[in-house]
Amino acid sequence: LQRVEINKFKSIAIIGSGSWATAICKIVSESKDVQQICWWLRKSEYVEFFNTYGHNPNYLSSILFDKNIVKASNAIEYCIQQSELIILALPSAFVQGTFADLPKNIFKGKTVVTAIKGLVPNSQEIISEYLQTKFNVNKEFIACVSGPCHAEEVARERLSYLTCASSNNILSASIAELFKCRYINTSVSDDIVGIEYAAILKNIYAIAAGIANGLGYGDNFKAVLISFSIREMENFLEKLGIATLKVNESAYLGDLLVTAYSQFSRNRTFGNMLGREYSVSSAQMEMKMIAEGYYSAKQIYLLNQKLHADMPVMQAVYNIIYENTEVKSTFAALANKIY
Amino acid sequence: LQRVEINKFKSIAIIGSGSWATAICKIVSESKDVQQICWWLRKSEYVEFFNTYGHNPNYLSSILFDKNIVKASNAIEYCIQQSELIILALPSAFVQGTFADLPKNIFKGKTVVTAIKGLVPNSQEIISEYLQTKFNVNKEFIACVSGPCHAEEVARERLSYLTCASSNNILSASIAELFKCRYINTSVSDDIVGIEYAAILKNIYAIAAGIANGLGYGDNFKAVLISFSIREMENFLEKLGIATLKVNESAYLGDLLVTAYSQFSRNRTFGNMLGREYSVSSAQMEMKMIAEGYYSAKQIYLLNQKLHADMPVMQAVYNIIYENTEVKSTFAALANKIY
Repeated sequence: LQRVEINKFKSIAIIGSGSWATAICKIVSESKDVQQICWWLRKSEYVEFFNTYGHNPNYLSSILFDKNIVKASNAIEYCIQQSELIILALPSAFVQGTFADLPKNIFKGKTVVTAIKGLVPNSQEIISEYLQTKFNVNKEFIACVSGPCHAEEVARERLSYLTCASSNNILSASIAELFKCRYINTSVSDDIVGIEYAAILKNIYAIAAGIANGLGYGDNFKAVLISFSIREMENFLEKLGIATLKVNESAYLGDLLVTAYSQFSRNRTFGNMLGREYSVSSAQMEMKMIAEGYYSAKQIYLLNQKLHADMPVMQAVYNIIYENTEVKSTFAALANKIY
Repeated sequence: LQRVEINKFKSIAIIGSGSWATAICKIVSESKDVQQICWWLRKSEYVEFFNTYGHNPNYLSSILFDKNIVKASNAIEYCIQQSELIILALPSAFVQGTFADLPKNIFKGKTVVTAIKGLVPNSQEIISEYLQTKFNVNKEFIACVSGPCHAEEVARERLSYLTCASSNNILSASIAELFKCRYINTSVSDDIVGIEYAAILKNIYAIAAGIANGLGYGDNFKAVLISFSIREMENFLEKLGIATLKVNESAYLGDLLVTAYSQFSRNRTFGNMLGREYSVSSAQMEMKMIAEGYYSAKQIYLLNQKLHADMPVMQAVYNIIYENTEVKSTFAALANKIY
């Protein structure tokens, strides 16, 4: 980290009730500077449960929080108003619904960190863009936090790494300081746009890796599929005008690897079921969690209608999910395009 | 592939008796052009076994060869003399001993393909350099073949990809044509030096990944370790003067991924045992196969004494194997250097 005068945040709101929100709540509650965390949970029964028992009833329930510091609420405006720093950690599909009725100036004077790994439905905006267009947040007050970081391993306190990105160097350093703890190492980046897209694209590639698995392709094929995918990601970022030559850093390649190879990855699990010829709807029914890549495949497909990046892996996943093409033959054709 | 007039090889010698040599023998025996394969096996009992039963007694024994085409011999000069194309596929540690007594002009008029994944002991040469200095082979007649390609998956005919590299474009295209078959896709490259080094370095990183596993680090850590390692590899190649910006292609990154993530990787298995605090010698005793990375760590360490590339992962593996440093604290220190 650069030696800059960083901000120390005392009050934080966390918006989201899933496993990643829970892991983030655990991480930031380790900080000595943080005096109060206002955790927005969607359902009032979860709020009541948390404020009684001190843990999330549904995700990473083994984590016990200090109720003197972390308080749950389902009043989103209240949570934001109480806090200097707002961390967004909910599925992208819920962003518009959750934020629909908030006043335009709700984030005025606040710093916002996105940990969301998807595009806003309909508009195909990344979250940092959405915050600027919808709520007029100045980009100097926006950061993102990205893995490789499965929430399940945070719960177990296994050493993990996060990248904190912002066009504002002081902010990225401040967020890196906030998230750093005994089991989390952090680094900084100024490529917030590239890192947000990388976090979205990698879920599509993890679905592809899962499909390959389900179809019975082996480790040799998978290694080629993933190294091709990181080049496909680089092509896409170049078409977007992001002159990043950083795709081998951990927020891009590392995040792809953990999602494509880890047993914890819900996107990979979803793909695996498709590969074993589950229908999309039955695969979704059998999984309790939402696979972000399901939505991302559509959003990136639509975005790429304008960009025309060469993306055979994304296209194959899109075709299988949305065009109902036969899985086996779609991947046989893909196998001849990658190298 | 470019449309060039390629060579079709009719007679091939394969030098080596391990699993990779066996897989290569299977692949090239699929070619319709190949009329005769002279397979050099070190021990006369293996030669006798093969010529009786048509399969390798020790590795990938499920593969049955056509004895009309493939004939085993332990006379290395004879094998080479009989063949237009010589494929080297033995552990690097045996190269000098195996080739010691061969006449300097043994490869005259021959084409040589290396599939060896290690440096020549003592001289720290890659095989393509060794062939030039020791046997005066013109580099226009040298190629290399590289994965990601575990031999075990070739035996099972699971779709795999090979890269064929040579400074001679016609040769790389010819080798790509030779190796291409129903379950093998091939591509070409002119970066033979970079690809030979990548195949060597990746084994060191696979040992590191195995150590992390054995020590109980999780998937998040491993993803960062591997994405850092590919950057470390790129740094090393740059110091060597190889202006390759291709490390995301499958012969570099893909080969690293399959070695670091696959259950078939003996380098990863060796590292895993070190991580579980086996001594180097007891880990080696328990494994029947040689882990190339064991030798490579020393060779690359020595080579880097002159190059001074920043290589904390290689250094950690070297220290554990050769300086007997404590595994847990060595990796705790490494964890603070990677990101």
